[in-house]
Amino acid sequence: MTSAAKKIGKQTIKLQNPPKIISTFSIVGPKEGEGPLKDYFHEIINDDTLGKDSFEKAESEMMYTAIKGAISSANLKEEDIEYLFAGDLLNQIVSSGYAARELNIPFFGLYGACSTMAESLSMASLFLDGGFARYVVASTSSHFSSAERQFRFPLEYGSQRNPTAQWTVTGSGAMVLSDHGDFPRVTYVTTGVVKDYGEKDANNMGAAMAPAAVDTIYNHFKDTGRKPSDYDVIATGDLGKVGKEITEKLLLEYGYDIKDVYVDCGDIIFDNERQNTDSGGSGCGCSAVVTCGYFYKKLMRREIKKMLLVSTGALMSTTTSLQGESIPGIAHAVAIEID
Amino acid sequence: MTSAAKKIGKQTIKLQNPPKIISTFSIVGPKEGEGPLKDYFHEIINDDTLGKDSFEKAESEMMYTAIKGAISSANLKEEDIEYLFAGDLLNQIVSSGYAARELNIPFFGLYGACSTMAESLSMASLFLDGGFARYVVASTSSHFSSAERQFRFPLEYGSQRNPTAQWTVTGSGAMVLSDHGDFPRVTYVTTGVVKDYGEKDANNMGAAMAPAAVDTIYNHFKDTGRKPSDYDVIATGDLGKVGKEITEKLLLEYGYDIKDVYVDCGDIIFDNERQNTDSGGSGCGCSAVVTCGYFYKKLMRREIKKMLLVSTGALMSTTTSLQGESIPGIAHAVAIEID
Repeated sequence: MTSAAKKIGKQTIKLQNPPKIISTFSIVGPKEGEGPLKDYFHEIINDDTLGKDSFEKAESEMMYTAIKGAISSANLKEEDIEYLFAGDLLNQIVSSGYAARELNIPFFGLYGACSTMAESLSMASLFLDGGFARYVVASTSSHFSSAERQFRFPLEYGSQRNPTAQWTVTGSGAMVLSDHGDFPRVTYVTTGVVKDYGEKDANNMGAAMAPAAVDTIYNHFKDTGRKPSDYDVIATGDLGKVGKEITEKLLLEYGYDIKDVYVDCGDIIFDNERQNTDSGGSGCGCSAVVTCGYFYKKLMRREIKKMLLVSTGALMSTTTSLQGESIPGIAHAVAIEID
Repeated sequence: MTSAAKKIGKQTIKLQNPPKIISTFSIVGPKEGEGPLKDYFHEIINDDTLGKDSFEKAESEMMYTAIKGAISSANLKEEDIEYLFAGDLLNQIVSSGYAARELNIPFFGLYGACSTMAESLSMASLFLDGGFARYVVASTSSHFSSAERQFRFPLEYGSQRNPTAQWTVTGSGAMVLSDHGDFPRVTYVTTGVVKDYGEKDANNMGAAMAPAAVDTIYNHFKDTGRKPSDYDVIATGDLGKVGKEITEKLLLEYGYDIKDVYVDCGDIIFDNERQNTDSGGSGCGCSAVVTCGYFYKKLMRREIKKMLLVSTGALMSTTTSLQGESIPGIAHAVAIEID
């Protein structure tokens, strides 16, 4: 066993054979396709039903498209992929389950709410580093309309939004990882613990998830000895602008000033003023498409060389909210670098 | 990279440093505590609310109890555990999320429906074999009353049951894994692909999941070169008696006669006649408590020495069923052995 060499500190694994993200694919809905990052996405759909008879089926189809797109852009075939790590927001992660049904790939279903991109990327990276596979896929998705009607209100209500509310991103991202090639590589995986500071307002998820983001980023720095300036970008996702402010402030109290390198995927995917998205984007798909589209392209062009992706998730359900429970949050961090 | 040595065949990893299951804990409800395996469980509760004000909170408390129980019976402390792999049936896996909130352990949330015990055990085993940790926990839970009202009908309806229906087990199992000691060890991990033969009857989950069990067992034999007689027990869970018959018959068509060593966790946890459980037990907790209670004790007593655990899950949701979708199934297999 070589665990002493790999595990550093309390929550971080230093990858000995840093896996490469050899391709990505991002597919987004019409609204995301009109946002500030529109030029970075691989595919923008015009019809967010994708011709399906339900939003849930459309979401699953988006994930299937993202996975197939990433595999094909790596010049691989479906049968080359040894494991699929995927999850989403829907009850029983049906977007992922039904997408996996169309793929003959051994499947590990995950649930980390909106932290799923970093969770699936963590798992995928560790499977490669552990020598368990040569090609794996990590993916996640969300859809405004399937999430809205599951978590909040029937769409037909046209209910008013709270200024702290976030807008669930319609989109899916997928990554193919392997052990070779000149591609962005995963160097550290910091796994989150669940944090709950008692926030109960399901319209203010940014506040509920911020303590988890703070805890994971803080422990990442502590475990690795790195500091904010070691990164070109630290990207949480998806705290929105409310959660972003809290995170920045709390980390400053812990002695880390991340202001200069800090963005939040939910904060940059929409033009919140123009697009009426209040506190910003959210959903598993948010940090997925921002990473698979925007950041991956910037890494490949060497416009950024070192980033820390910190996907954040809120682990409640409508049942626990109705039962008066507060909202536990979790955040997983993955360091991605290219020379 | 040493992937060639570890990955054998299409879906199986042969563990190079077989992790040991150094302790387990099983907690079950009153009905399970009156069943044929009652003497094997670590704790039987008299009140299936555990004094909580909802069944969901009771389920989460059961999982917390199982995890703490397994850690303490391994003479470890919570802070010794480096990763927790857990999932359950509830929307957004809230039993696991809220149990993890009470534990300061890095947490990977999983969703594999009733395949979760084998899924979490697979992940936990691979993390140890990959050298990423020294102590990890795998856990899952289910609760008759939280599952029934989420997936089927309000309990107050007292609705009639179909003869092919299964009875969701109230229970939770947890395992602590490490790299040392004279304990049952995990030797092979065979990960399932999603199979869907078009079954749409949510009251006949055994039939929906059987093709996945068959596929995973068949590929386990093909990948490892093993045959049914290499095992003292092959335990699916939880197909119930209907799904068990289908699995046995289909595997015979593929050339494997498993009859002599085959049991199904759902089929043995209740006395179906006496306890009115129709086709048998189900739920994530079923294969969890049968493995953590019954099989683990039999392994430790050397009454069995080689078993293949094949937890099976149905990946639909109530939404997909209402939308007319068929039920995809998945099965993950883990070989557990002791000298």
